[in-house]
This record gives sequence, C-alpha cells and structure tokens, in this order.
Amino acid sequence: MNGADALIQTLADNGVEACFANPGTSEMQFVAALDREPRMRAVLCLFEGVATGAADGYGRMTGKPAATLLHLGPGYANGGANLHNARRAGTPVVNVIGDHATYHRQYDAPLNSDIAAWAKANSNWVGSAETADQVGDLTAQAVAASFGPPGGCASLILPADSAWTETDKRGPQITVPPRPVPTKAVIIEAAARLKAAKQPVILIGGTACGEAGLAAAGRLKAAGVRVLIDTFVARQARGAGRFLPDRMLYFGEMAIKDLAGSDLMVLVETALPVSFFAYPDMPSVLVPEGCAVETLADKAKDGVATLIALADAMDAPASGDLTVLDLPDAPKGELNAYTIGDSIARHMPDHAVISDDAVTAGLPIYTQTARARAHEWLMLTGGAIGQGIPVAIGAAIACPERKVLSLNGDGAAMYTVQGLWTMVREDLDVTVVVFANHAYRILNIEFARTGSGRPGPAARALLDLGSPRIDWVALASGMGMKAVSCDTAEAFDAAMAEAMTQKGPRMIVAALA
Amino acid sequence: MNGADALIQTLADNGVEACFANPGTSEMQFVAALDREPRMRAVLCLFEGVATGAADGYGRMTGKPAATLLHLGPGYANGGANLHNARRAGTPVVNVIGDHATYHRQYDAPLNSDIAAWAKANSNWVGSAETADQVGDLTAQAVAASFGPPGGCASLILPADSAWTETDKRGPQITVPPRPVPTKAVIIEAAARLKAAKQPVILIGGTACGEAGLAAAGRLKAAGVRVLIDTFVARQARGAGRFLPDRMLYFGEMAIKDLAGSDLMVLVETALPVSFFAYPDMPSVLVPEGCAVETLADKAKDGVATLIALADAMDAPASGDLTVLDLPDAPKGELNAYTIGDSIARHMPDHAVISDDAVTAGLPIYTQTARARAHEWLMLTGGAIGQGIPVAIGAAIACPERKVLSLNGDGAAMYTVQGLWTMVREDLDVTVVVFANHAYRILNIEFARTGSGRPGPAARALLDLGSPRIDWVALASGMGMKAVSCDTAEAFDAAMAEAMTQKGPRMIVAALA
Repeated sequence: MNGADALIQTLADNGVEACFANPGTSEMQFVAALDREPRMRAVLCLFEGVATGAADGYGRMTGKPAATLLHLGPGYANGGANLHNARRAGTPVVNVIGDHATYHRQYDAPLNSDIAAWAKANSNWVGSAETADQVGDLTAQAVAASFGPPGGCASLILPADSAWTETDKRGPQITVPPRPVPTKAVIIEAAARLKAAKQPVILIGGTACGEAGLAAAGRLKAAGVRVLIDTFVARQARGAGRFLPDRMLYFGEMAIKDLAGSDLMVLVETALPVSFFAYPDMPSVLVPEGCAVETLADKAKDGVATLIALADAMDAPASGDLTVLDLPDAPKGELNAYTIGDSIARHMPDHAVISDDAVTAGLPIYTQTARARAHEWLMLTGGAIGQGIPVAIGAAIACPERKVLSLNGDGAAMYTVQGLWTMVREDLDVTVVVFANHAYRILNIEFARTGSGRPGPAARALLDLGSPRIDWVALASGMGMKAVSCDTAEAFDAAMAEAMTQKGPRMIVAALA
Repeated sequence: MNGADALIQTLADNGVEACFANPGTSEMQFVAALDREPRMRAVLCLFEGVATGAADGYGRMTGKPAATLLHLGPGYANGGANLHNARRAGTPVVNVIGDHATYHRQYDAPLNSDIAAWAKANSNWVGSAETADQVGDLTAQAVAASFGPPGGCASLILPADSAWTETDKRGPQITVPPRPVPTKAVIIEAAARLKAAKQPVILIGGTACGEAGLAAAGRLKAAGVRVLIDTFVARQARGAGRFLPDRMLYFGEMAIKDLAGSDLMVLVETALPVSFFAYPDMPSVLVPEGCAVETLADKAKDGVATLIALADAMDAPASGDLTVLDLPDAPKGELNAYTIGDSIARHMPDHAVISDDAVTAGLPIYTQTARARAHEWLMLTGGAIGQGIPVAIGAAIACPERKVLSLNGDGAAMYTVQGLWTMVREDLDVTVVVFANHAYRILNIEFARTGSGRPGPAARALLDLGSPRIDWVALASGMGMKAVSCDTAEAFDAAMAEAMTQKGPRMIVAALA
C-alpha cells in the first residue's frame, strides 16, 4: 500500500465512492490506485470546472461528499468557480489536489504555485500530506471537515512522493456528529414571538429546503406564518405532495415590496437576506422597515429539526397544504420560457432532478412547474454560471434511477460545455436544455439597473452572443450527443415528451431568437 | 467621468488598448465606459480562461499589457490557470476584477469571496479601489507593476460603487524604467570564467529568447559557449536568419546526459534548471555533476543587454551562425507529428506566430520547423494546458498582419474550446490545428515514469479520450469556424498550403488515431 492507496481506501471506507477527475502527471499514483479499489468510481471530466460542479451535484443529491482529483494549482483554479458554488450550497466536497514531490517544491518548477493559498479562500479545511504516513489520517480529517457544518470544500494536497511512498497507515472511519439544534427554550420563545407577530415570516435555506424541512414549514404556514425560501438554495423539494413556499425575490426593491407589512422575520439555516448585487440608491438588505429579524438557526444548525420543533411548539397542524398535481395543457405557438416550463411540467417524470443554470429563463420555468410531479430543483447558489451541465452530471451519477434535466442559458452552457462529453461517455440519463437567445440577456437587464444608461455599440457588443450564432446541435453532436432544435412550443413539447420517456443523454435546443 | 472612465482612460493613456472581457453585473459601468473611450478595444470571450490566455498572447507579442475584465472571484478563478501561465511567461497583464460595492461586501452576498487572496497567489501586485478617486492612481500603479521586472499579473479590484461614483481624478502616465543589467565588472568576470571553462554552457530564458537576445547568444556560440534555452520560454525567435540554440530537454535524465561534461553553466534571465515533475529516484536539478552554476542575470534583469555585453567582453565575432532557410520536401504517407511539422515548415509564411499547446506533438513539429521561414514560437510556460487557443487570439489581435498558428493536443484544446468562437467573431487570421489522438498521450508516457506500473482498466479509462470520439469538425462548425479533417500527410499538406495563403480563422484536424 502506498500513500495513494491509503487515500482512496480511506475515502471509500468513509463512503466517498465517486471521484470526478482530470489528472496529470503528479496524480498518476492516484490513478493507478483506482485499479486496486473497486469501491471508487472515477469519472473523467475534460475540464476541472466540470469535475468540481459534478461533485457539487453529487453531494447535493446524496448528502455526502464526492472527491475531485485536480492537477496542482492550475487544476484547482479551473475548478474554483464551481467550488465557490458548492461552498455556497453547503455541499460537502473533498478535493484531492496533486502537488510536486515535497523535495521538488523548493525548485519552483513551472507548475508550482501556492496551492494552499488558493484553496484556503474557498475551503472549510486545507491540509497537505507531507509524508505517506500522514495521508490516511488527513484524508479522514478532510472527509469530516467537508460535512462542516455547514458543508463545504475540504482540500487535501497530495505531494507526489507522499502518493508513491509505501505506508501501512490507513485513515480511521469518521462519524459525522448530528448538527446542533436550538434549545427547547429558544424554540419556545421563537414560537411565542411568531404567534405574537401580526405578519410573521420565516425564511429558510440550506438542507431545510428538502422534503422534510418543507413539510414542517408547511405546518408553520398552516399556523399563520408566511414561509419563504432563499432566492437560491442548493436543493428544493417541489411539486405534487410537497409544500410550496414562496421564494425571496431576486431584485431587492421587489423583495422589500413583497415583504411589506411583515413585522418579524425568523431565519432558519440561512442568514440575513441581501440583494444579489448592489445598485445605486437601492437597498442592500431585503428586510422592510419595521420588521425585526431573528436568527433561530444559523447555517451550521439543523434546520429540519428546528422547523419540526418550532411547528410542534406552535401547535401547528400535523400537516400543511400540500401541492396537488396540476399539469398544464399542451402549449401552442410561440416558444418562450413559459411554454417551455409548461412542457417540462407536463412531461417530467416523478422524482426528476432539475439542475438550473438557466438565468433569465429559469424563473418562468420554475413558476410553471410548481404543480408538476414531485421533483428536486438544484439552484445556482454562488452566482458563478457554468454549473448547470456539471451539477447534472453529478446528480445523474448519484441517482441513476432518476431523470435529470439540465437547464442552461446559452452563455452559461458555454462555460462548461465540455461536460456534454462526460454525459455521453457515462451514458447518463440527462436531458440538457439550452436556451439559445444568443445574448447574455440578464446583463441587458442589469445594465440599466446599475445606472449605466443605455448601452452604446461597444457595450452592446459585450452582451451579445449572436455573432457568430452558436449551433448547439453541432456542438452537441461533436461530443457524441444527439440533439434537436425547436422553435415552436409544439416542437419543444414533442421533443420533451420523447426525451422524458427514453433513457440516456440528449440535448434540446430552445431556439428563442 | 466616473471611476470606470478613470480606469479605462488611465489604461489607454498608458498604452493599454486591448481588453479581453467576460463581464457581469458588477462590471457594467466598465462596459458602459467603453463607448466613451475609443482607444480601448474590447474583445468578448465566452469563458475567462480564454480572456486571460488572450491577454498573455497579446503581451508576449507586444511587450505591453492587455487588460482582462473578470467577474468577481469566480471570474478570476476561471482565468487563473492561464494567468499562472502568463506569470511563468513573465507577461505583463492587468486584471480588472469587478467586486461588490464596498458597502455591500459586509453582507456576504452569493458571489462574495476573498478576491484578493485568490489574486495574490498569482500576481505581482494586488490593489482594490475603495473609492472612485483612488481608481486612476491605482490603475497607473497596476500598469507599472505588470512590467515587474519580471513581468506578471497586476490585479486591480474594482468595487461597483467605485466604478459608478463620479471623480475627476485620472491616473498619471507611468514610465517603465529599464531593466537592470549586471555591472561591467561582473560581466568581465563571467566572460573570463566562460573562457577558462573547458565545456561552458549558457542557459537563457525570458525576453532574452527574442531575436536580439538570440543574436547575441549566437555570437557566444561562435566564441565557444554552448547555448541552450529553457525547455519552455514565452517566445522564441526562430527560423531563417536567426540563431538556433539548443533547448533544455524535458526529461531530467536525458537533460543531464545531454549536458554531460559541462563544467560551467551561466544563467541569463532564468533560474536553476529543474525537472518539470519529480519522479522516484530521478534527479530534480538538471545540472550534471561537476558543473558549476552561476547566475549572471536573474529573471528581473535585462537578458538581452546582458548577452550583448557578455559577447562583447568575450570578443565574440560580430555575428554567429544564422539559420539558413531549408524547407522540407512535401511529406507523403502516414500522418504524424513529423510529417505535420514538415507541412507547417513548408507553408508557414514569414513572421508567422506559433501558439504551442500541442503537448506530445509539439516537439517533433518544433524540430521540423527549425529551418523554416522566420517565425516566433510561444510555449506553454506554466504547464497548465488550455493555452493554445487563447494565446493565439491575443497574438492575432496584437499582430493582425501576421499569420498565427495555434497547435493543440485534443485534450488541451477542449480546455478552452470556447475561444474558437472569439476567433470567428473577430475574424482573426488564425489556423487552429488539433492533434486528435483521442488520448492524454503524455500521461500514458508519464504513468510509467512515476513508478505506477502498468495501467489497469480503471487507470486507462482516465487517460483515454476516445469514448466518445470528439468530432472536431462539428465542434468548430458549431462556433462558425470552417474546419477540415485530414488523415494522410498529403491531405494535411494540402490543407496547410491553403490555410497559409488565405486569411481568416479555420481549423485543420490532424486525425492521428
């Protein structure tokens, strides 16, 4: 057993059984060790941003970390944006970052860089195995640290000599302690305040937006508390049989208007709601005047247990209003995000998973699918576009029996377009939808909001993707993925109907402009 | 004038006239200001790694920085790998990284991260303009810092409110001081030692590998000193009329064998030569036993002036042996890196620029083109693949009158494949060659060298790109680029002949397997 074996075996012993990888020379020992540890499934990604986003999607669906395998500092940097999203999602991820042999670092060879500094800015934990004997223990520490709470990235730097040197030290099996819950007294006091408020609101995030948390939240709604979720959550349980919360609005002035009259806001597994961006003369904090804010459970706490305890303390009914299945009619005519949403709602099967990186198209589809079959919605938690394809890969590997939909703005899809290849290679059951409006459309909206006036020709050119037009069918077929382009609601509906009844990777291009 | 205007005007005043951009909401003021500053050419890239690599290529060809425009921490991370390569190349680059408004940072909105920590690990200089009035001065500082010496990345963080707030403070014009040169006494002593040595070697890097530096190096060769350049240099002047140095070999044991008998190694604008990676029981330092090493000029010094002074001090002849044009015959039969090299040598016009990210195919092409028409060779300085397409973009924008060839391994090309779109959009005169061997072939070689034995099925799968096969003609055409695939030497030669006589972007796929 060498250090690489100690690493992979310790990962597998701790339930880390998927590794999204783009290795280089310094990681060859890890690659070799894969043939000696059948519990680990290695998935090749042609760019590290695909690997890290896939680990995020896997972690969101399983609640446990996948590993990534990254090639020194540049490999980490390439994966950094989707690790940012993963951190914001609270997703456990274990990064294994190869490094030069310990004795070789001093010479500052071309690939040398300060890996720890890069990783630290975005990690729960950073460690470097300076000897093979340290690898096992540090691996176990990394897995433990990835759980937080809240969950996040743990980054283990693995020098090449620590990987190739013999060792007999495998790491321990860790146990993940339960997340803390507010004390009974705190819960009772919060319940009393919510009861006393005229227009109380509870804002929830994190793991509390899963099925169990929302079920408890639905009881609170029945007890008179308005329930909102954060604008962007890692994973929301939605559709038939689930409680349907409101969602904090994206634009600050609209959010504050929506909350007008609220006199108490209780936070569960989230923080003070703030505007996604600042704009001149617009509020940063999304709390209306006169509304008190109370953090009942921060992001490290168990939001699900908190909500259940709170519902009990409020004598809330045993269950709240649950969504009744209500599928839209077949859409006709113009293809737009609403008719697309109708088609998705009509056809997606029970327990589908949606990886949403659709930017402007995402919200209409979100609203149109509210009463569809039960599904999970994975959101862009950190604002770094290029998540939709990778997260879908990870979700599909985590849940091979579920249909995965990857919804992508065309600008976002280009960021990590290499992920299509991995979907084909692994024959994943993912339907990729690309919204081809040939623009960074969100920026056309944001431009005016930042007080920048009307864009001139130079500015317009930087928001436009139309010259040349990207032929998404050609791009997909170049990576072996079948694809169809649709420019009417009827054509899209037919393509979605077919995609949802067949297995395997495919793309539907929504030709919106 | 607002802070964004102050920034762009100060850049343009200091000769920074190209900006490779992928902006988001926090950068909209910068985008708006482009319409008020016609000196600045903004080039949209669909991924930040393309933007940063393009800035590297631009800087290598002009000797002055381009700007990048990046969207907060994740935008910087996406560009980080090619900035690593730029730093290793000593290329001046000015990164403009948008940030949240200063007063908004405290709320830790989703896109918030420690931008400075990420940038610092890879920058000559990091600054943040906390007010609009600071923008101009800091911009001038950033430009100055990008020149080093040695050149590198300067990263200016621009909070949104510093961009949108009015100011009347434009930054100063900076002057770049000349790089230091060793004193005359040091030069004379080095000359004496080189004369006294039995088998002296001079190893040069950085800007000394351009035309003027190599001309002086050729004189040293004529005076009896063996001349080598670093394995990977930012830019080498090659071909007819230039002095042809040796190149430090990539694999350490071969390099040491090649240098056997050398008793003195003098370093000019470089550092102690070391192995690219460490391997078990292989040397890290590429200096044979008994060979003294002397740093005459480190990377911050003016290598060109040093070499000229040294040649004078050695009474070297006025000029050394210069390469005589010697074009190969038309290649026939099997398509491989050697026949491809012959075709490139035959057809590339005078003053072509080669952006080399071809990994295993690169070296044979390098050798075959040694006696071609005068050209510049831009190498992968930092080992982070995905440079070949972006650097070609920047070179083509810097030198619109020159033909640019972008040579890419298929694995490397996938990293920043989005750059094809920018080539088409800007109608750049770039011929992209993709070596489609459907494998990370270098890793098949490195695997054994790291002592990993023979790869099993799991390991082999991580080195293979053949399932599915990437259809490069389809990928290129999806981004509006014409492309042709060739599987014989004759077909490739015909395609190269056509590409070299016509303007505009195109791809030639070398179907090697």
